[in-house]
Amino acid sequence: MNILILQEKLKEGLKIIEKISSKSLTLPILNNVLMSAEKSFLNLSATDLEIGVNWWALAKIEKEGKTTVPSNLISNFINLLPNEKIIIKEENNNLIIECKNYKTQLKGITAEEFPIIPKITNGEFININSAVFCQSLKQVAEIPIPSTTRPEISGVYLCFKKDSIVITATDSFRLGEKKLFLKAESSLKKEHSLIVPQKTIKEIINIFENKEGEIKIYFSPNQIMFELLMAETDHPQIQVISRLIEGEYPDYQKIIPEKNITQLTMDKNEFFNQIKSASLFAGKTNEIRIKTNLKNKEVFISSQSQEVGNYESSLLASAKGEEADIAFNYKFLLDGIMNIKSSEILLELNGDSGPGVLKPVGDQSYLYVVMPIKN
Amino acid sequence: MNILILQEKLKEGLKIIEKISSKSLTLPILNNVLMSAEKSFLNLSATDLEIGVNWWALAKIEKEGKTTVPSNLISNFINLLPNEKIIIKEENNNLIIECKNYKTQLKGITAEEFPIIPKITNGEFININSAVFCQSLKQVAEIPIPSTTRPEISGVYLCFKKDSIVITATDSFRLGEKKLFLKAESSLKKEHSLIVPQKTIKEIINIFENKEGEIKIYFSPNQIMFELLMAETDHPQIQVISRLIEGEYPDYQKIIPEKNITQLTMDKNEFFNQIKSASLFAGKTNEIRIKTNLKNKEVFISSQSQEVGNYESSLLASAKGEEADIAFNYKFLLDGIMNIKSSEILLELNGDSGPGVLKPVGDQSYLYVVMPIKN
Repeated sequence: MNILILQEKLKEGLKIIEKISSKSLTLPILNNVLMSAEKSFLNLSATDLEIGVNWWALAKIEKEGKTTVPSNLISNFINLLPNEKIIIKEENNNLIIECKNYKTQLKGITAEEFPIIPKITNGEFININSAVFCQSLKQVAEIPIPSTTRPEISGVYLCFKKDSIVITATDSFRLGEKKLFLKAESSLKKEHSLIVPQKTIKEIINIFENKEGEIKIYFSPNQIMFELLMAETDHPQIQVISRLIEGEYPDYQKIIPEKNITQLTMDKNEFFNQIKSASLFAGKTNEIRIKTNLKNKEVFISSQSQEVGNYESSLLASAKGEEADIAFNYKFLLDGIMNIKSSEILLELNGDSGPGVLKPVGDQSYLYVVMPIKN
Repeated sequence: MNILILQEKLKEGLKIIEKISSKSLTLPILNNVLMSAEKSFLNLSATDLEIGVNWWALAKIEKEGKTTVPSNLISNFINLLPNEKIIIKEENNNLIIECKNYKTQLKGITAEEFPIIPKITNGEFININSAVFCQSLKQVAEIPIPSTTRPEISGVYLCFKKDSIVITATDSFRLGEKKLFLKAESSLKKEHSLIVPQKTIKEIINIFENKEGEIKIYFSPNQIMFELLMAETDHPQIQVISRLIEGEYPDYQKIIPEKNITQLTMDKNEFFNQIKSASLFAGKTNEIRIKTNLKNKEVFISSQSQEVGNYESSLLASAKGEEADIAFNYKFLLDGIMNIKSSEILLELNGDSGPGVLKPVGDQSYLYVVMPIKN
């Protein structure tokens, strides 16, 4: 291998790649990035055996070839170089890097030892705006929790339909559902429902959130692939391939209440701030209370603990339905409020033991169900 | 106690106070802030028994009194309140806080249990510009290390003279010395030399770095006090009182070389960047080499390790004296370079086993001595 590439370009690729490389003690090759030069492209690859990432850039290829070197090391080193031309040569699997007055040799491991990253070459796919898709993922990405007994809920449930993508996550205490309506009907012949590991979702957000234009999402029975093409070409720039979580996602529609007993519309920031203040006095149970005085259009937030003292505040609400007096874990409420983008928030309650639902005002696409603390 | 104060003002005081409150399990009172209302002032105090802090603000005092409450809790709570008037009342040592639509009660501990923070009421003092003093402290503040066998070097050595303050720190591998020349001769009748704990130095920087005007520094045999007055009054706004470290500071002047064999003047950022790049290849010994080629006005930076590979880079230097070939711990070099503010840096070398000295170019007030790695 003997190639020439600009520092800025290579830095951009390594930034994406190095996050996927794992710190594996048992399989040192997984710490490495596979660098291969073929035709007009430099290709970087990394995998942790769950997610694989490929990145390509146009480069001046004097001689084709490939090897692997530690991802962190090369990324840190390239970051410190000036934005000039870099010459990269491979000799006996080692990498020789020259840039202006810098010259270095990195010990490598032969590319043969690098695991094969699978590809999805046929099957259905859809196109979706990358920023819009990532913003939607962010509204549920923090909800799943690692679970060995219920691996399904450790992932995010994606349901690709003709006219929408439904994105759902739960940890069994709360549930977030985002509906992303497509501008044009997709060409999908059937629905694809799949459970994607939380780590993959977070990486997708990291990698594609600030990218312009559309990404392609490819489906296969055991894998999902996200692809961004190079501007004005058919050649991929980034591919992220992830395994799926097997199993049946819980039939969550059942727990989303169809009706409600109390409806409160409040200023979102004020509500957030008061829950946050109440949390300081909530003690070990994390319990805060929400109580209404519908006649005065007031909602009272309170909390108390033996050690710390007690707290009460109130805010204005436009309210419908019956009086409510209900306790929640403040952490679950705060998480839900943070996922809501509108300036006003709607809280629907169902007595002191039924689930509460948070919704943005004027936006039917998101809901967040949270279970109360029963006395 | 019954007082009225603006949220913004109280928040400012608690920010300073809460950092000093320790997380003491054996002495819970140290987690608390002492709040006392007397005459026209609210006074906040905290101590970890090594450092004590007092803060005052003008407030509307309806009724004098005092109590103590957990520092973190009240600080977090006040931070979340709107910037409005706050009413604070004390009842049976508990604190009742009311602000707009917020009302809360914090459990307190009686003020009698709070340790007395000593004061320095007589003796000599000097005035110094707080920003200039803090900038000088910062140039050595990170150098000391905790040491039970040599407690002297776990502090910063301050020597107050008629016309200057000399600030020194060492960990026995490197030493930083800053001379701060006074604009006007101080009124000191004698020199005061004392060793201040590193923690105190860092707190002084935190508290006074962005304050305008002058602070007063008071001396006593076992303590030092830093004081900022309220604008246009004689009343203190902030006082920080710290114990001193006992013992004799090492006679460090001996290790500052009087002559040198090689003198290299280099671009500071380029030198820093190349040492940083070399550090990636330095392996467990942290060793990087500096080698000169005086004829070509070149300095070569190199490093290598069995596992990672090897590195070499070069930069231009205007050089005097003999050729040099010397190894340093890169961490010590980087720390030293970071403390130097000029765009060019001077490195004076004394063979492969004598100490190296880093200095800013065009500024005689700072030097950083670093011992080489001997082969």
